[in-house]
Amino acid sequence: MRLSRYFLPTLRETPKEAEIVSHRLMLRAGLIRQEAAGIYAWLPLGLRVLNKVCAVIREEQDRAGAVELLMPTVQSADLWRESGRYDAYGKEMLRIKDRHDREILYGPTAEEVVTEIFRASVRSYKDLPKNLYQISWKFRDEVRPRFGTMRSREFLMKDAYSFDFDQAGARHAYNRMFVAYLRTFAGLGLKAIPMRADTGPIGGDLSHEFIILAKTGESEVFCDRAYLDFPIPPANTDFEDVAALQGIVDAWTSHYAATDEMHEADAFAEVPEADRLAARGIEVGHIFYFGTKYSEPMGAKVAGPDGIERPVHMGSYGIGPSRLVAAIVEASHDEGGIIWPDAVAPFDVALINLKVGDAATDDACAEIQAQLEAANLTVLYDDRDERPGAKFATADLIGLPWQVVVGPKGLADGKIELKRRAGGEREAVAPVDLVTRIRRI
Amino acid sequence: MRLSRYFLPTLRETPKEAEIVSHRLMLRAGLIRQEAAGIYAWLPLGLRVLNKVCAVIREEQDRAGAVELLMPTVQSADLWRESGRYDAYGKEMLRIKDRHDREILYGPTAEEVVTEIFRASVRSYKDLPKNLYQISWKFRDEVRPRFGTMRSREFLMKDAYSFDFDQAGARHAYNRMFVAYLRTFAGLGLKAIPMRADTGPIGGDLSHEFIILAKTGESEVFCDRAYLDFPIPPANTDFEDVAALQGIVDAWTSHYAATDEMHEADAFAEVPEADRLAARGIEVGHIFYFGTKYSEPMGAKVAGPDGIERPVHMGSYGIGPSRLVAAIVEASHDEGGIIWPDAVAPFDVALINLKVGDAATDDACAEIQAQLEAANLTVLYDDRDERPGAKFATADLIGLPWQVVVGPKGLADGKIELKRRAGGEREAVAPVDLVTRIRRI
Repeated sequence: MRLSRYFLPTLRETPKEAEIVSHRLMLRAGLIRQEAAGIYAWLPLGLRVLNKVCAVIREEQDRAGAVELLMPTVQSADLWRESGRYDAYGKEMLRIKDRHDREILYGPTAEEVVTEIFRASVRSYKDLPKNLYQISWKFRDEVRPRFGTMRSREFLMKDAYSFDFDQAGARHAYNRMFVAYLRTFAGLGLKAIPMRADTGPIGGDLSHEFIILAKTGESEVFCDRAYLDFPIPPANTDFEDVAALQGIVDAWTSHYAATDEMHEADAFAEVPEADRLAARGIEVGHIFYFGTKYSEPMGAKVAGPDGIERPVHMGSYGIGPSRLVAAIVEASHDEGGIIWPDAVAPFDVALINLKVGDAATDDACAEIQAQLEAANLTVLYDDRDERPGAKFATADLIGLPWQVVVGPKGLADGKIELKRRAGGEREAVAPVDLVTRIRRI
Repeated sequence: MRLSRYFLPTLRETPKEAEIVSHRLMLRAGLIRQEAAGIYAWLPLGLRVLNKVCAVIREEQDRAGAVELLMPTVQSADLWRESGRYDAYGKEMLRIKDRHDREILYGPTAEEVVTEIFRASVRSYKDLPKNLYQISWKFRDEVRPRFGTMRSREFLMKDAYSFDFDQAGARHAYNRMFVAYLRTFAGLGLKAIPMRADTGPIGGDLSHEFIILAKTGESEVFCDRAYLDFPIPPANTDFEDVAALQGIVDAWTSHYAATDEMHEADAFAEVPEADRLAARGIEVGHIFYFGTKYSEPMGAKVAGPDGIERPVHMGSYGIGPSRLVAAIVEASHDEGGIIWPDAVAPFDVALINLKVGDAATDDACAEIQAQLEAANLTVLYDDRDERPGAKFATADLIGLPWQVVVGPKGLADGKIELKRRAGGEREAVAPVDLVTRIRRI
């Protein structure tokens, strides 16, 4: 993609309203633009990151056996009356009346809708287990939206819902998502720690939040440092193996880790002092087992082997991709700007032409772009008529993993400059060696 | 994907409320489920089709030089006051008040938001042309939603917006989208005819609707039969070539074609009688050039070479993917169910095991699934414990392009049955030849 044909409205100045670094950098790098309080447009570069984050999430949901569907953003109030949550949910729910004065709402979550879909078609324990997930926009009318997409009103959420015949099945469903989440966050280049958590308005009696440690985190968290070195379950983990999954979850919950609400000072004091980690964290995922809280009032029942109908055991499992993009920036940046982990970088390479208009330099850049793209690397080619300094600053700000700098002097020696954004190492390479060199990482 | 692990709630009976065949078949084949009036969930199989449709749209938008972003679904009323459309839009706009009593709305379209994004960053004619597009959910509070996803309240829309310095540039932008649309609909297996159209609430003085002919179409259309045999512009069309694009558009507008609102009986009478086609049509795309209608009141100006600022010339370009899925079903089905064009089929192959539990048959199916997936074909494997008749009916109903039938008798002769859903031809093939045979089409 040529930058001259792209739409990348970077900002030179730091927007005043942005209190945390991810918000500042996402605005400055032209990833997002605020359209109303807590409501953002995802500009082209930001959308590419968001899509990459979703791709990693999707891959791990599919691997764990979840099936993707898509529920509407607008829901009927009647459905929420069935579960008893319509009045309970409070002002965070965006309530709407349509032209016929019917009460509808912009879904803040989808337990009710998915339970309705399930009960309409599933009748027998033989059809279980099921886990249905979606990646879709939700709205929560936060009283004070802030921190950019970290706490926005309109936000993207991956929400999965599991349906099982009994509690043992539901526990296995929970463990599947627990392991899928460990893999998802690791795949995004993040170190997330599962912590015992409060269940809040979703309800239920088993719940973990996945927390990444960051100075700007909203909540205080307490955990055993040992988790930082725990191994991530491999890609070939057998999600059907009940005992193996339970083993992984047991290991990942064997040490102390709790959010502020669930913190027990006495238990924390038993962690060896050198391993006690009290820090700030960002919640990037939240999983719940809540049994028959929705299936019972909404009549989502299946017949067992004995022919008797029982309400299904459910869980729900959320990740916020739009929040995750901000969390990744919090975790990976320097003074110059963002440093995208390879898995979510909007393009792989920033190709910088130091002398636009010089035939040899232009030709070399065109050839290098073609060569990189033929190797399935994505390239943002800075072909603007700008000073080198401005181009370097833009490249650092937007944080693509590689910078390839092409100028007449280097070309005279048959060399171009390759810079790794993370770490900043530079080396001179021959254009012909470029792909091999990049692929080495 | 094994059907036993999937979520495919097909219906045996035809839902009463469904008036047209696409609505009936989409409900029966488990593609969608109604959640409220004019509001649908996309079940797993339906979502796969919707995503395939979007992929074709995206490919052609990108080819034509448009850049993807994503604007929020919820918009500020103030922005619509700037353009003067807030009061004018009427009851189709879903108006909302948030917890602070601020007026917001669920966007029915996005001319205002995109103009705001543009004016915030683009200053010079040198940054033009630009075309920004998104694929996102819109809401129009239709007084009488009907026909399933053909006329729903919450619907998916691809909306593109072009920005040019002058009318000549805007005309080229219009032609780009005109050609992209011809390619998009052809890529979806549809024959769409561009027709002169009324501009409605979008405004402007140049507009075409893209119409596919179907008995259940909502509007009456009139055109010259010659369009049915017009060639589609090839993939290597140069979208930068102003004259070439104008030539294509001139050819595609050289004969009579108009929707009901724009119909001129006298002009139509001049078409040779044998070529006059009066039929019903489904609108699947709509493109508009509206000049400075939004840029002028909203102050979206750029400086020209003379340094003087002028409002930019804009156009907007819509396709409804959720409506397109229904339109494709209208155009491609038989008594047994849907017949998906290859480009949008949710899976390539329905693999039917006639004797689940028979070790040899089970093994053969597992091997065939692995072999097909290794060849990058997607497979929905019917491993349910059901009668063959029920499996054949499901396969015909959901309309995957190929059916592979595996039973003990055939296997004894070293053969499996391959059926092409379109046409219904069957042949016995050796498992080893399956991929080659399928790839021949």
